[in-house]
Amino acid sequence: QKAQQISTEIRCPPFTNFHFFMEKKNLGLFSDFVDKQTGYTTKNILAAPLMNGKDPLGVVMAINKVGGNEFSKADEDLFTKYITFATVIALQHYTSYMYNVESRRSQVLQWTASKVFEELTDIERQFHKALYTVRTYLLCERYSVGLLDMTKEKEFYDEWPVKLGDVEPYKGPKTPDGREINFYKIIDYLLESKEEIKVIPTPPVDHWALVSGLPTYVAENGFICNMMNVAADDYFTFQKEAVDESGFVIKNVLSLPIVNKKEEIVGVATFFNRKDGKPFDEQDEQITEALTQFLGWSVLNCDTYDKLNRTEWRREIAAEMVIYQTKATPAEVQQILNTKEKFDMNPEDCDQREIANIPEAKDVDLLLFSFSDLPVSELDLIKCGIRCFFELGVVEKFKVPAEVLTKWMYTVRKGYRDITYHNWRHGFNVGQTMFCLLQTGRLRKYYSDLDAFAMVAAAFCHDIDHRGTNNLYQTKSTSPLAKLHGSSILERHHLDYSKTLMAEESVNIFQSLQKRQFETVQHLHDVCIIATDLALYFKKRTMFQKIVDATEPMADEKEAIAYVSNNPIRKEIIMAMMMTGCDLSAITKPWEVQSKVALMVAAEFWEQGDLERTVLDQQPIPMMDRNKSDELPKMQCGFIDFVCSFVYKEFSRFHKEITPMFDGLNNNRVHWKELADIYQAKVDAIENERKRLEEEQAKKATGEDGGEGGKSKTCTIF
Amino acid sequence: QKAQQISTEIRCPPFTNFHFFMEKKNLGLFSDFVDKQTGYTTKNILAAPLMNGKDPLGVVMAINKVGGNEFSKADEDLFTKYITFATVIALQHYTSYMYNVESRRSQVLQWTASKVFEELTDIERQFHKALYTVRTYLLCERYSVGLLDMTKEKEFYDEWPVKLGDVEPYKGPKTPDGREINFYKIIDYLLESKEEIKVIPTPPVDHWALVSGLPTYVAENGFICNMMNVAADDYFTFQKEAVDESGFVIKNVLSLPIVNKKEEIVGVATFFNRKDGKPFDEQDEQITEALTQFLGWSVLNCDTYDKLNRTEWRREIAAEMVIYQTKATPAEVQQILNTKEKFDMNPEDCDQREIANIPEAKDVDLLLFSFSDLPVSELDLIKCGIRCFFELGVVEKFKVPAEVLTKWMYTVRKGYRDITYHNWRHGFNVGQTMFCLLQTGRLRKYYSDLDAFAMVAAAFCHDIDHRGTNNLYQTKSTSPLAKLHGSSILERHHLDYSKTLMAEESVNIFQSLQKRQFETVQHLHDVCIIATDLALYFKKRTMFQKIVDATEPMADEKEAIAYVSNNPIRKEIIMAMMMTGCDLSAITKPWEVQSKVALMVAAEFWEQGDLERTVLDQQPIPMMDRNKSDELPKMQCGFIDFVCSFVYKEFSRFHKEITPMFDGLNNNRVHWKELADIYQAKVDAIENERKRLEEEQAKKATGEDGGEGGKSKTCTIF
Repeated sequence: QKAQQISTEIRCPPFTNFHFFMEKKNLGLFSDFVDKQTGYTTKNILAAPLMNGKDPLGVVMAINKVGGNEFSKADEDLFTKYITFATVIALQHYTSYMYNVESRRSQVLQWTASKVFEELTDIERQFHKALYTVRTYLLCERYSVGLLDMTKEKEFYDEWPVKLGDVEPYKGPKTPDGREINFYKIIDYLLESKEEIKVIPTPPVDHWALVSGLPTYVAENGFICNMMNVAADDYFTFQKEAVDESGFVIKNVLSLPIVNKKEEIVGVATFFNRKDGKPFDEQDEQITEALTQFLGWSVLNCDTYDKLNRTEWRREIAAEMVIYQTKATPAEVQQILNTKEKFDMNPEDCDQREIANIPEAKDVDLLLFSFSDLPVSELDLIKCGIRCFFELGVVEKFKVPAEVLTKWMYTVRKGYRDITYHNWRHGFNVGQTMFCLLQTGRLRKYYSDLDAFAMVAAAFCHDIDHRGTNNLYQTKSTSPLAKLHGSSILERHHLDYSKTLMAEESVNIFQSLQKRQFETVQHLHDVCIIATDLALYFKKRTMFQKIVDATEPMADEKEAIAYVSNNPIRKEIIMAMMMTGCDLSAITKPWEVQSKVALMVAAEFWEQGDLERTVLDQQPIPMMDRNKSDELPKMQCGFIDFVCSFVYKEFSRFHKEITPMFDGLNNNRVHWKELADIYQAKVDAIENERKRLEEEQAKKATGEDGGEGGKSKTCTIF
Repeated sequence: QKAQQISTEIRCPPFTNFHFFMEKKNLGLFSDFVDKQTGYTTKNILAAPLMNGKDPLGVVMAINKVGGNEFSKADEDLFTKYITFATVIALQHYTSYMYNVESRRSQVLQWTASKVFEELTDIERQFHKALYTVRTYLLCERYSVGLLDMTKEKEFYDEWPVKLGDVEPYKGPKTPDGREINFYKIIDYLLESKEEIKVIPTPPVDHWALVSGLPTYVAENGFICNMMNVAADDYFTFQKEAVDESGFVIKNVLSLPIVNKKEEIVGVATFFNRKDGKPFDEQDEQITEALTQFLGWSVLNCDTYDKLNRTEWRREIAAEMVIYQTKATPAEVQQILNTKEKFDMNPEDCDQREIANIPEAKDVDLLLFSFSDLPVSELDLIKCGIRCFFELGVVEKFKVPAEVLTKWMYTVRKGYRDITYHNWRHGFNVGQTMFCLLQTGRLRKYYSDLDAFAMVAAAFCHDIDHRGTNNLYQTKSTSPLAKLHGSSILERHHLDYSKTLMAEESVNIFQSLQKRQFETVQHLHDVCIIATDLALYFKKRTMFQKIVDATEPMADEKEAIAYVSNNPIRKEIIMAMMMTGCDLSAITKPWEVQSKVALMVAAEFWEQGDLERTVLDQQPIPMMDRNKSDELPKMQCGFIDFVCSFVYKEFSRFHKEITPMFDGLNNNRVHWKELADIYQAKVDAIENERKRLEEEQAKKATGEDGGEGGKSKTCTIF
């Protein structure tokens, strides 16, 4: 208070390379710079630092002792007391400022995160959204973001002239990772008075935001540049006059690179004119650095967005190619359709059955459970498949054009691979058995026409695109199918495939259905096709048995029909068991058929076993081990007893019309048992012979070795 | 200082529902709770609040005036002065604490972001990485994260028993969005003494971290729960004794839901025992809330990771299906190969030409530029294609098994769609012309055998899987191909396809090459197939012309060979122009061929024009407009003059052996011009007739109308 003037300058950032101030009585070292500027004469100074621990916060100076030549000891004491209080105030000011900085920083981070995680989008939109959200925390008048071209490689036609020496190679600035610096877009945010956002695609090099060379410099070096006084700078030539019609003039600039996690500079963010007119300080640098760092890292999401899109497009391209390659061609459809002329007519005007060339007379009896595909050609099986739908009466009822039905059936056939067992013949057989169960087995009474339509269609599709290896093999070989589907791997794939066909108008037999009907069909496909996963079979056994138990004592058929058809779950359970009945139906066929088919099933298993040995380097289970092929009859008996028997027994109990299947099964059981017994007899004979020889040798050994007999036994055996 | 005791309690959080304290002289309202506890007798109190603006920071109390019955006015004045200073200290303490909180918060956010954006990964790994990184900022002894099952739908086999009433429906707690609460995994971080991380998959319900019911409560309600004293809580029953062998005992708990951007609770984070022994406070809640909020939002990345993987798997599945469906089958290969027996032999032991059934004698002359595919069947064209490679001598040199070559060639054929022009016949012709340019045109002298091999193979593949519509149509119809490829859309697709075949061992004709050779082949495919984009043609014209100009005056053939073959760029430019020469070669064929092929080209264009009209609702350009088909001859002349002429003229100048192509072109030019002239004559005749009629009528009108003639002219014309 006794000094003429007390100036307390508080600079908030902790100073570096700056330790303490001393009272200067001798002004010999005094710089008179300020005096010369102000005309004031400094005679003596009493000064002390304001410290925050080891960090100086500022300096307090008392200048020119009043009523004396120098400050006294008493002045110093008083000054020291004053300093204590001033330190507390300065510290509070400093802490409060830093609190504000940290608070702004965490707000900026939180809001940026909120926007970045809102959706997956491209870099422009992401940066735009994030920056716009945090604009008020940035406390500047304007900011711009320049986005850099990320492509490193050039195309042949641009490279060739350079490599031939006809065109000068690029000599301009490059990013640290070697890209030519090219700002392909500038997003310009004006926050002053009326807010305005401009997007400038492929900005000219003399655009005001680029012309200084600062963004290029930042992109080239990756430095944070804080230009405190733009007008005074001669390294970068900022536009001196107003940059646009808004009258905006650049005063100070803070420019930062936006760097992704791969350490590539993806853009440059530049902030213009701090709101309070002062230059940007270290704290502004800190906040904007946190922001640009976050933005840079978040480019992962934009890259992912791009990758996801590209993968999806590639998937779409491949999916379209699959459809193109598997869809029946007009020539193939024409092999089946009656006349070209007829199907050019209005479909409503002519008999679809006639167009589809499906005779009323049955040259093969599709209504028999004992039907065998073996004498029928694959093309004729397609015709038989088509006929099933006519016999069901669904073609007319659901307005399926004969051409579409033919094309669908042919396309389904082409969807099956030419493998040993799970080929089109198997697919057909399952469809035909479903048709039989509904018609001959009289299970149709529980179902609507639409249900029956969907069930037969699903049965035909149920193993489409099977690869001849089972679900466990998919899992063990970590095939993409296994990665995609957690359970019922192949079944979900067959289902997907059958739904793809429904999505393809030209082969969609359900195209005339109403939305609700179409959804029912899709749901029934889900139920039917997933049901063919034998791993789920044991889950539905008891549920099915309960229904059979409940309906068995019902004297009136109507009661049973009501019991089932009024309950969608019971309908689905029976349906699911029907699918199993169809899928396994080969085991119920006449022995001459079953004996052949069983070998095909086995052959496919053995092929998988071979793959397990060669590809997976694993020992296959006995069923898939061709070295154990002799045990096939025994394994067939086991399969009949533990899996099949229940299915056909219960179905026969449920509907006596299905008994032929159970009879067929039992007949085959006798045959397999006979073969198993023959094989077992052989094995026993060999074993007996082996034992006899052993005993003989043992006897001999005992005879020869006398007393030592017992000890050397293990040696003499082998 | 005159009070017996001064207690300054500073609580840092701003108190709510709390306004100001007054000096209490009358203790009638005084609660003697503390006195009873401590045995101290409070007689009088001088108290004042410490305020931060409107927010109270704490209270200062002077208790029991020494040397008097009550505090005096002077005491109050002194007390007020003291309060001023105490406020500054309290404020500093408060601000400093809040600075610390904000600082921790921004650190937590920055570090979490750093980890989240490091890579795309699954939720477990992401949460683990992020939480582990920020563990020191959380100031607690242990924390655990429980992850919730996100599946909403159940499978049939679990639904059915419930729907049938055989199994009780789930009655347990559910998340707000209706999921059954099921913690499928717990990640448990022990930070005390030795750090330890445990991952407990499918934890039992009585796991110590779940048994209290708190995580379930949080998952059910989405509340943040701060249990200040676990032992005293009777709503949740935390384990009282040590939870595991570490001896850890729960004292206080802060539990928060982790909520994604879709507002679904994906997990629960629980923090145990604040490090300083006190309960968690509002600031801990704030920091952990910021953290869990960020984690919840960041689940977008995990979901994306999942989506990306699934899309990729679907793409792989579809890609495998394409390969399966387009790869030549053994039966197809057998149609061509000589004998089944022979290709089962060791390939090194037998003549590949014999196996491939390609006779030495030429029944069609593949060496002629005038070769026409029209009389040859598509199957025989496959054989011709195979023969080209034998004639080049590359089958033996690069050890291509005849079976693989046959399978590749047949697969290429199947890759071409059966469309009007860009079908297998076109693909074959381009390959055959490349073969001719190399052999008959003697361009081969500039290239290695490997180059020639790759060039002919690329030529055969160059339009594989063409869809009969051009690049512009892809762009306008925003096909997935157009989205995937920015430029040379179809060409990049043909290239991808040809590379897919190289990746498929059983059809890879380059399978015996060394890595470097294989890379060369791939590069040459890039150059050759992209070169067929006519949009790039004008870019390479001058480069090609320069080479022709440079070599023309060279008397010594060796000089020209060195000039080209020592410079890979020149080789590539010529190669690229050769591809154009091949692609357009139909225009050089004998007139009876060209006249037919030109119609096929036109027909495909018209089909695209029809699609543009129907699908895109746009008017096609004249070339694609079938209503302008009469102008075809004129357009052909234009195409010859502006595009084709240069190619064959320059090639003829480069190598006189190629002159037959230029001659063919000129011959066709004459024919097209003739047709164009005839059509033009017709048009002119009609136009003349129209004019004549007009004039006649005008004359008549003038005659009839007399003076008015001039005015009504426009009316009389129509």
